[in-house]
Amino acid sequence: MSKTEIPYKIYLTEDEMPKAWYNLRADMKNKPAPLMHPGTHQALKAEELTPIFCEELVAQELDETTPFIEIPEEIRNFYKMYRPSPLVRAYCLEQKLGTPAKIYYKFEGNNTSGSHKLNSAIAQAYYAKKQGLKGVTTETGAGQWGTALSMACAYFGLDCKVYMVKVSYEQKPFRREVMRTYGASVVPSPSETTEVGKKILAEHPGTTGSLGCAISEAVEVATKNPGYRYVLGSVLNQVLLHQSVIGLETKTALDKYGIKPDIIIGCAGGGSNLGGLIAPFMGEKLRGEADYRIIAVEPASCPSFTRGTFAYDFCDTGMICPLAKMYTLGSSFIPSANHAGGLRFHGMSTTLSQLYHDGFMEATSVEQTSVFEAAEMFARIEGILPAPESSHAIRVAIDEALKCKETGEEKTIVFGLTGTGYFDLVAYQKYNDGEMSDYIPSDEEIAASVAKLPKID
Amino acid sequence: MSKTEIPYKIYLTEDEMPKAWYNLRADMKNKPAPLMHPGTHQALKAEELTPIFCEELVAQELDETTPFIEIPEEIRNFYKMYRPSPLVRAYCLEQKLGTPAKIYYKFEGNNTSGSHKLNSAIAQAYYAKKQGLKGVTTETGAGQWGTALSMACAYFGLDCKVYMVKVSYEQKPFRREVMRTYGASVVPSPSETTEVGKKILAEHPGTTGSLGCAISEAVEVATKNPGYRYVLGSVLNQVLLHQSVIGLETKTALDKYGIKPDIIIGCAGGGSNLGGLIAPFMGEKLRGEADYRIIAVEPASCPSFTRGTFAYDFCDTGMICPLAKMYTLGSSFIPSANHAGGLRFHGMSTTLSQLYHDGFMEATSVEQTSVFEAAEMFARIEGILPAPESSHAIRVAIDEALKCKETGEEKTIVFGLTGTGYFDLVAYQKYNDGEMSDYIPSDEEIAASVAKLPKID
Repeated sequence: MSKTEIPYKIYLTEDEMPKAWYNLRADMKNKPAPLMHPGTHQALKAEELTPIFCEELVAQELDETTPFIEIPEEIRNFYKMYRPSPLVRAYCLEQKLGTPAKIYYKFEGNNTSGSHKLNSAIAQAYYAKKQGLKGVTTETGAGQWGTALSMACAYFGLDCKVYMVKVSYEQKPFRREVMRTYGASVVPSPSETTEVGKKILAEHPGTTGSLGCAISEAVEVATKNPGYRYVLGSVLNQVLLHQSVIGLETKTALDKYGIKPDIIIGCAGGGSNLGGLIAPFMGEKLRGEADYRIIAVEPASCPSFTRGTFAYDFCDTGMICPLAKMYTLGSSFIPSANHAGGLRFHGMSTTLSQLYHDGFMEATSVEQTSVFEAAEMFARIEGILPAPESSHAIRVAIDEALKCKETGEEKTIVFGLTGTGYFDLVAYQKYNDGEMSDYIPSDEEIAASVAKLPKID
Repeated sequence: MSKTEIPYKIYLTEDEMPKAWYNLRADMKNKPAPLMHPGTHQALKAEELTPIFCEELVAQELDETTPFIEIPEEIRNFYKMYRPSPLVRAYCLEQKLGTPAKIYYKFEGNNTSGSHKLNSAIAQAYYAKKQGLKGVTTETGAGQWGTALSMACAYFGLDCKVYMVKVSYEQKPFRREVMRTYGASVVPSPSETTEVGKKILAEHPGTTGSLGCAISEAVEVATKNPGYRYVLGSVLNQVLLHQSVIGLETKTALDKYGIKPDIIIGCAGGGSNLGGLIAPFMGEKLRGEADYRIIAVEPASCPSFTRGTFAYDFCDTGMICPLAKMYTLGSSFIPSANHAGGLRFHGMSTTLSQLYHDGFMEATSVEQTSVFEAAEMFARIEGILPAPESSHAIRVAIDEALKCKETGEEKTIVFGLTGTGYFDLVAYQKYNDGEMSDYIPSDEEIAASVAKLPKID
């Protein structure tokens, strides 16, 4: 074991925790393209968004100029219950790999939701409470976001209605029970509780649901019930803003020990974790104060950055949500059912899309058997059973560390360990049983869904 | 929220972590009675124990005089991957209860095993590795201990064979998959892999197994296979020794802020957590340096302290293990299947039994619906979904805090939050569905199993 001054885990004190979120867009010369009305093709205004989203969240969504937005004290107090999260030096992994690289990971899994999603859930619940709302609605697929939101709503005494994709509702009863324990009502989607749900059930009897359908139901319930709004756990600018707490803590912890990372790696689905982790580092890069290699890692079965198109598209498969300009595989693209590792969204955060388009970050895709190999190795060496999503970043961090072994370079690698895999054991079982395989969509498959992108003048 | 100098979470630095375990027995005037040979009724000697247990662990088991035993550097390095564990000030719970009491909990659930069990698992695996063994065997019921041991064995490259009670193996496939991911072989017990397993299967075809049977199989495999030893996760003195890291960290954290607890509360099954948490505080009490109220909490359905007998008894239901003098309900006592909250052992650590017998601690029992009420309340307010076992301590901590509300006393309460409930969602589901009930064994039921205690001259 290496003798060094750097501890295994760098914890900030509560005084050192961020008091404001960092709004990366303020430092972008090319701002992300605005959300667009699907009918008029005009940029959406605040008053068009407030019937769906909370007022202050709409303001945050549209704010492209304020660099720092204060974190209200109530949210900072909640953060103190599970933050600061540790920045861990992966001494054991470095030793096992025999690499001269120094590996750090920011671990966001030490809370009951099991991931970083809680950082934005508590913020969104707070603003809903502040607005005097009765409750919020949302959709959840695997259940991480729904769990985080249930916890946040329980804390503020808000009602929480979660539309859970039916197949997950049935296959992940434990996720459902966690949400129920926190007082949320969890409805399998599609359901008979909404018009859109009834319509889908009539057209597709026996369907096991989809995220797009669950979004449609949650939005309908939010807009039809006075005192309710809809909330979302990724993709949106407001979510990236809240998640900047990850990167701000990481940067403070590194600065404390005079460490400058060479490479920053994060997994990317809708972009909430990646956008949060890289925020202050990307800010320095945009302002020309520092340079970093920043790598987005996505699954080979859902490669929005690496094989998608930069264009306006629907955020949901049901095509009822606003249009966003992003790297997309087309809203009709559905990743293979074979894919177990999360990160299944067809598009990507508009902010990250613009930054990638402008050459400020790289992207790479990895296949799932190699992701689970990395996950198993990491679990056995570093002790933590990682979420499949996070394991995409682990895979690339290990690969970069092995390159350093070849070249002898002592690079400093930082990656985001977004969560734990305690509710993903069905996927691990598949891997343990040797029944996991890879799927890479064909060019024709991607071209077919991209061909259905909405036509914008 | 109270304005105070005490942070939400007190973390020690790595330098402040304990470098030695504390052996409480060294400060006991009345030592715990020795383990006894079931045939000869003579105190067991080291050479009779080394065919079953690792040599250094036998030495620790029998050492009643050395107050501090150094924690080897390799174990301290592993501890640094998930320790120090936070001592949390339950500000939100205090506020919700409206109590003047100050509530702290030592949270041991921030590791993949989900509980404090890892503290002893890594120590036992280390000594097995040091002795040059190939592997270890053990039994597991709910799976916490088996998971912890699998993680520890993966770290040291030891083979790990876990005999898992068949009903748990079938009903808790996710626990099983975690162990497999860490490379352990998990066998449902009773099995055809052992003589005792075959015998039990012949006598009781279709049996779903018991912890006693799984112990018998694990011991048989350890003693019949060269290079293997058997390890156990609770009850034994060596386990309490390793778990003293919990109490030592707690005491250092409290001392750092000049806090003196009035009441210390822990759940008690075999005694590993309680014995570890209270160790340094009990030491002060035994030496007359300080006084604390120390409360053991057990389930009303398995009340060894509060309704058991202080006598020599078998540690296992199969009656193949040594005899231990302890508070026991009789080794043939089996708690109601209705009981979901763990802590199902019929006996108790010999050390804790002696201390209780000598009046150094109190014990109380609680019913499971009130335990899950406390668990749900705690989850919603403090964010962490607690293990059912830990929730026994939460229940009593809340009750004591409410007493302070009545009397206006500003007592300081410390309790052990041994783990998380992420793999106990079947029990939570039962609670959420209103299908949980209580069971209290009758006096006749306890008398019947106590009547079968071995006769000692």
